[in-house]
Order: sequence, then C-alpha cells, then structure tokens
Amino acid sequence: MLLFIGLGLWDEKDISVKGLEEAKNCDILYAEFYTSKMGVDTKKLEKQLGKKIIVLDRENAEKGDKIINDAKNKKVGFLVAGDPMTATTHISLRIKAIEEGIKTKIIHGASIITASAGLLGLQIYKFGRIVSIARPYKDYFPLSPYDSIKSNMKMGLHTLLLLDTEDHMTANEGMQILLEMEKRKKEGIISEDTLIAVVARASSDDAVARAGYLKDLIKEDFGETPHSIVIPAKLHFMEAKALVTIANAPKEILREEGRLEG
Amino acid sequence: MLLFIGLGLWDEKDISVKGLEEAKNCDILYAEFYTSKMGVDTKKLEKQLGKKIIVLDRENAEKGDKIINDAKNKKVGFLVAGDPMTATTHISLRIKAIEEGIKTKIIHGASIITASAGLLGLQIYKFGRIVSIARPYKDYFPLSPYDSIKSNMKMGLHTLLLLDTEDHMTANEGMQILLEMEKRKKEGIISEDTLIAVVARASSDDAVARAGYLKDLIKEDFGETPHSIVIPAKLHFMEAKALVTIANAPKEILREEGRLEG
Repeated sequence: MLLFIGLGLWDEKDISVKGLEEAKNCDILYAEFYTSKMGVDTKKLEKQLGKKIIVLDRENAEKGDKIINDAKNKKVGFLVAGDPMTATTHISLRIKAIEEGIKTKIIHGASIITASAGLLGLQIYKFGRIVSIARPYKDYFPLSPYDSIKSNMKMGLHTLLLLDTEDHMTANEGMQILLEMEKRKKEGIISEDTLIAVVARASSDDAVARAGYLKDLIKEDFGETPHSIVIPAKLHFMEAKALVTIANAPKEILREEGRLEG
Repeated sequence: MLLFIGLGLWDEKDISVKGLEEAKNCDILYAEFYTSKMGVDTKKLEKQLGKKIIVLDRENAEKGDKIINDAKNKKVGFLVAGDPMTATTHISLRIKAIEEGIKTKIIHGASIITASAGLLGLQIYKFGRIVSIARPYKDYFPLSPYDSIKSNMKMGLHTLLLLDTEDHMTANEGMQILLEMEKRKKEGIISEDTLIAVVARASSDDAVARAGYLKDLIKEDFGETPHSIVIPAKLHFMEAKALVTIANAPKEILREEGRLEG
C-alpha cells in the first residue's frame, strides 16, 4: 500500500493528526522536498513520527522504483510538502502504483494555493489560472506567464504566482522577472505602479503578508523563502480593506481610480 | 488574541498537529460548520481537544461579536472547516479583530480546492476560476456559473464547481442544474456527453473520485455530501490517464477526438 501524506506548509507540525497516525503505522517512510521547499527539519519530523525517513532526490522521486517496489508488500508512506497531489510527478507515481495493483491513499495537507489568498484576505473565488515562475537561464525566458496574467486581469481575476522554490526564488526576483517580461512584451500589464502582494513562509511564526506598489515592494526584504506573489485585479471593497488592514497596503488603494469593483 | 484554526476536510483528525496544540492552549473555542459541512463530530473533536466548543450558527458567526469580545482579553480559537480564510465572512471577522487591536493568527488546513484536483489526478495549474453553485429557488436561477465555465473552457481550463454544502447539494443535483443552465443559455457548453468528474467526502475513508459522461454519472449514487464537481477542459495525456486509472473514466477518453492537448 502507498500513502501520499501531505506535510502542509512549513514545519513538522503542519502534518494533520490523521497524517501523523498513518505515518506512524507505515513500515517505510520516504520523503521528497524538491517540489516544494519548506522549513521542515527532517530530524524533528523523524523524532515526531518515531521512524527513519528516506529523503529522495528529484531523480529517485521521479523514477519512484524504490517506492513502488516497497509498496508491493509493505505499507509505504511518501511524505510530501503541501497537499500531496499538486505535483504532477506524484500523480504519475500514483498511476504507476495503481497499475501495479498497489492500493493508494491520499492524506491531504494545507497548500500554498489557498494559504496565499487567505493570508492576504483575498477571495479564492476571484483567482484565475495559477502561474509558475522559473528562473530565466541564458536564452530561456518563457513569456507564457505574462499572457496568463494578462488574460486573468482582463477578466478581473487575481493571479497567484508560484515562484520556483527549488531555486529559492525571492518575491523580489519574481518582480524583477515580471518587469523584464513587460520590457519584452510591451502590452502594459506590469509597471512600477502595479499593485502587488507578497506572501512569505506561510504557516511559520514569522509568516509575511504584504501588499503595495511594485516599486516599493521590490526594495523590501521578505526574509527567507518560500515566497509567493499575487497580482490582484479589481478588488471587492472588503478585499481592498483586507490588503490595507492585514497586509499594510497604502490606504490610497481604497480611493484609487478603477481599483475597486462595481 | 484570535486564532483561525483550519479543521481540514473531514473529521476531527484532519486538523494539523499545530492546530491541535494551539486549540488546546486556547481559553475559549468557537466553531462554525455552516460555510462548509464536513463529517466532523463535535463531541469527538471536544474530546480530542479536551475542551468545550461553542458552535455558532450563521447569524452569530457572521456578527462575530462574542468572538471579538472574548478575544480582547482571552486566547480565542475559532475552528473552521477547510483552510480557514477561504470564506469571506472569516476575512471580515479578521479585519474587525485587527481594527479592535486584537492579534490574529491563521492555522492552515487542507482545502477542497486542491483536494478535488488532487484526488482526480488533474493539474491544479490548469484550473480556471472556481464556481459556486447554489440551489435555485423560485425565480432565483443565477446563470453566471455558466459563463464562467464557458470562459474557462475556451481557455482550455478545468472548472471546479463547489456545491452548496449547507444545502447538502449532491453532484447529481449539480449536474441537473448544469443541464437546466444549458437549456436557458443554449450556447452548447454542457450536454449529456460532457465529461464530468465528481469528488465526494474528500479525506474520509470512503472518499469518491469518479469521472465519466454526464448522462452516466447523473444516475450514479455518490453517497453522503459534501460533493464537488469538476468539468475538465482539454486534458494532458497524464490527466486523461489519471481519470481512467484513478476515477474509472471510460477508456475511450484517451482516444476521443479533441479531448487531449497538443
């Protein structure tokens, strides 16, 4: 049997009570931390579970041979950050397992997808497609995120930008990349005056939720990664109030021309 | 101090270890179950936390006076299904609390938003705007969900339909409503041959993830609510394979004209 166990957002205490009990009952525990880097300390997690954890690198997690082999006749737990099936590679592993006749089970965990909206006080129902931002590399500079942001904005929908956590991308670097995209596409979607929101280290004791204009936020220090960015579209009055109250956005967004809905 | 503590998806064991510890340390515990009905048994939750829980009805949860008053000089925990800030009313309560000078904290929980995609093996990055479906009442029959589904589909994005849990809406009723919307709008978005996916009782021992054509699924019994529906747009091959392997979709979707991407 193969259990995909979500670790949630930050440390060893973000696993659910159900996940903890199930993990304690497993014969073997694997984990991977490359799809989503969090603040979890493997030693502390091992202590809490009373079990050794075999941490897999990207290659071995993607192949998944060891996991599949063990799961044929043992109860195997695979510990994964966030809600465990948000990464394609885990879906692929689950399909392989089922094809091999292995029973699978999902133990859900909190995800940065709802946490980002929630920490900022933005409505999850007003988000469009999620966008991932990878670090540009030589000639590799994908512009598709720009098109998604544009399309979301046109429909009045917020965009959540997930920054490459394996690369420890900061929100500042993310904003830099957004400006560079604008420079290349020139469609007037992103500027120094764009309202931006940043979430850092969700679920940690020093979690950050900040909102403001790009030109200001790009100079701020949000501390350790993981960071994520939200580009808000038009705001419901309550959302604007939330950004001001919770995320310290400039009060002028409450009066800005065209900022609020309706 | 006011803590919003996510209970996650189903029973008393879906709270995180962090949430459990924080709740045990609270002076007073409130809860509401009207924004999202789950399988949680208040007595079991009280036993696990070693504390009485005051369950608020919609009116008292929305007003929030009691919570705010108590939080002025006590550590108050507010237990909420899912990830706690996905409901607008809780964001509003948090703003009120901050305005009253009360410290707030969020303890995240698993949400149906990522769980639905995950249980079906669909990629969360390929979802468009989330849609809520309420039960029609006399002349009240909102058609805006239809427009959102259409707009998502046009962009090749899946749509998650959250069904009114307070009303215990089943997926079957949801599909009936979709057909009625089509009857009124006549834009050829929904038909008996539309591929539909259903998730029921996520995180319970008898969680359901099913996919198939509307005409077939509408006759199936998915058991107790909560249910949610996903209308998949074009599928990545891996997603189609997931729907077949995990959610028992008809194999023909792998070969269907125009079903797969690229």
